[in-house]
Amino acid sequence: MKAEIIAVGTELLLGQIVNTNAQYLSQRLAALGIDVYFQTVVGDNAGRIRSAIETARSRADLLIFTGGLGPTQDDLTKDVLAEYLGRKLVIHEPSLRKIEERLAGNLIRIESNRRQALMIEGSEPLPNEKGMAVGNALTADGTHYILLPGPPVEMQAMFDGPATRWLLRLLGESRPLHSLTLRFAGIGESALEHLLIDLIRGQTDPTIAPYAKEGEVAIRLSTKAADEAEAAAKLEETVRAIERLAGRYLYAKEDVPLEETVVGMLRASGRTAATAESCTGGLIAELITSVPGSSEAFAGGFVVYTNVMKRELLGLPAELLEGPGAPGAISGETAALMAERTLERCGADYALATTGVAGPSPAEGKPPGLVYVALAERGGRTDVHELKLSGGRDGVRLRAAKHALYRLWERMKESMTNF
Amino acid sequence: MKAEIIAVGTELLLGQIVNTNAQYLSQRLAALGIDVYFQTVVGDNAGRIRSAIETARSRADLLIFTGGLGPTQDDLTKDVLAEYLGRKLVIHEPSLRKIEERLAGNLIRIESNRRQALMIEGSEPLPNEKGMAVGNALTADGTHYILLPGPPVEMQAMFDGPATRWLLRLLGESRPLHSLTLRFAGIGESALEHLLIDLIRGQTDPTIAPYAKEGEVAIRLSTKAADEAEAAAKLEETVRAIERLAGRYLYAKEDVPLEETVVGMLRASGRTAATAESCTGGLIAELITSVPGSSEAFAGGFVVYTNVMKRELLGLPAELLEGPGAPGAISGETAALMAERTLERCGADYALATTGVAGPSPAEGKPPGLVYVALAERGGRTDVHELKLSGGRDGVRLRAAKHALYRLWERMKESMTNF
Repeated sequence: MKAEIIAVGTELLLGQIVNTNAQYLSQRLAALGIDVYFQTVVGDNAGRIRSAIETARSRADLLIFTGGLGPTQDDLTKDVLAEYLGRKLVIHEPSLRKIEERLAGNLIRIESNRRQALMIEGSEPLPNEKGMAVGNALTADGTHYILLPGPPVEMQAMFDGPATRWLLRLLGESRPLHSLTLRFAGIGESALEHLLIDLIRGQTDPTIAPYAKEGEVAIRLSTKAADEAEAAAKLEETVRAIERLAGRYLYAKEDVPLEETVVGMLRASGRTAATAESCTGGLIAELITSVPGSSEAFAGGFVVYTNVMKRELLGLPAELLEGPGAPGAISGETAALMAERTLERCGADYALATTGVAGPSPAEGKPPGLVYVALAERGGRTDVHELKLSGGRDGVRLRAAKHALYRLWERMKESMTNF
Repeated sequence: MKAEIIAVGTELLLGQIVNTNAQYLSQRLAALGIDVYFQTVVGDNAGRIRSAIETARSRADLLIFTGGLGPTQDDLTKDVLAEYLGRKLVIHEPSLRKIEERLAGNLIRIESNRRQALMIEGSEPLPNEKGMAVGNALTADGTHYILLPGPPVEMQAMFDGPATRWLLRLLGESRPLHSLTLRFAGIGESALEHLLIDLIRGQTDPTIAPYAKEGEVAIRLSTKAADEAEAAAKLEETVRAIERLAGRYLYAKEDVPLEETVVGMLRASGRTAATAESCTGGLIAELITSVPGSSEAFAGGFVVYTNVMKRELLGLPAELLEGPGAPGAISGETAALMAERTLERCGADYALATTGVAGPSPAEGKPPGLVYVALAERGGRTDVHELKLSGGRDGVRLRAAKHALYRLWERMKESMTNF
């Protein structure tokens, strides 16, 4: 079944609100195995709503409307669809009684809210648990229509309850969609696609869709299968094929950011991490502490942006940072010593350090995008990685921070393999 | 002129992301006096992108695409539109050179990113300041097309810069739109709207449009005037009216984030700030250091998430943090001492400290959203502010960080007024 989501509301076209309803319904419909090929937004205008219906009917079997069920004169969805189908609007008595009860006998308000109890003749009423406007579901001339209210709280309750029950009856035998998200770190979208290109091109079930996500890369696998077991088997086979080609970058078989996986591994092993950040300016600490429960896993952090602070807070020797022949603040030597000093000062098991040029201007004669990431481990070795990153100042900072977390993940994975 | 916004991306149809680009563009187009009658979302499928173009051409003069300009095989927007128009794709040499520079000679990556430098023959290239994919603008057979990248940061910069300049030339004889953004801190969107409600309702030129923006609030004033001088006079009058009602929260008469204003004031006065963060976990440092040139203004920062680190790194007394009758880590006393110790240790002029409950769970028996922000000044007083914030873990952290910056801005403004 192919669905189109039609959001009705001039406030969306003016940018006063964002269309979160379309996202919510798209997720729900994907899970039901219903393809969404288009989402449309149209204003509170009868002619244009009618033309949106005509366009959508030419390319979808199921039209789901959100919005335009309210009490005012510019709430037109039911009126326009009823006229389009050549049907009348009739009062849904239980909804009218509910409105009368809620408005406690205020006759003026009851009169102006009466429109919310209207339904298209011959449709199935969809009760509104969170508000007053009744929804509708109906099939006419082979096209299915669902009318939902605009406020997200009302829309979600109505869709997940009575509308989903109506849809499941309609679907009868069709197979639901199963999907799985894989998350990767330490590799860019195009490099990952390059590794997997033959697999992606040669395969249609499950489908393999890479996409970029906040400095990381994800792949979404989707398959239609008769049941859970068949779906799990098909997905698992594709996951194994991907692992053979790009397993060293795969950190999660669910849709979670890298910092969540890293914090989970730290907590599971009872270890802690600390940070010393120059070019990332606190971003690594911010990412780690964005995870609920990270206080057990995060020992503490320094933001040492200037050479003075690198000396004062971390005790780095001046001759490392400045002077003729010195490696300089932006060097692998400095990154390594920042990590080692932080390890000691915070009593942590791991310490990550960054130093580099976020840009836009060069520093110490070194180009924007040059970043050193160091990882020190208590009783273990210190590694330094030189990165050449792109993406402007914000992009360089985000990618450097994610790369540091990737190196910590890699080291923890290594130590789990060794024991 | 009638516009349609067409977002291209299967991830939108699967509900993986929400179409914030449509909201952003709708706001901007409204301000330019361009009507948006439809927004459409279509997947990464050549046939359906083509049908979306045909439908949109039948009902709009200007088609604005977001997404599908990336490096991978499912980024199709340019290919499909070029084929639809019977034109070739050609390399935009400056964009290719930028890609080559950014990828620093990595031939495999350059090859797979080469697609991002393609443009439709005869179109105007729209440079991408924040990323690699070049945008396009062109007019063919009486229809105007603008192609923008999908990532919001890139899309916004490209639309507000080169795409708006192209549109203004297109609009030609109609009076150009003059607009001005005012930015506010320390106040929420609805509270600000409440202060200004009579002004907003009573006025149509300039229009006054408040909107929320990453933990802050902005107001966009727009007017159509014959020339710069007339526009400046009209805008200035409205700015003065707003200043009378809400001037104490107004930090900039341009569209810049609070941290940029704060860093600018620190640099202008030759002063430095330092941070000690518990519940914000490095976010204040991250915001400050996101501003180019902040190294002169930022002395350094601590992320002291645990009580051990508050003692070890800042020397806070154990009896303040723990034990019966102690104020506890989440208290105004702790926030104040964190700020004062940081001031000393970093030799800074100002120090900001945060401690609180980001959530989702309570801590020390205190509810999520309770945050203490302290500001200490060298040779000056220490202030503590108790906040009760909402918005989930991420919202609480962001609002707390922005509030801290607001207090620093307020203090600096006060000292500038005094001298």
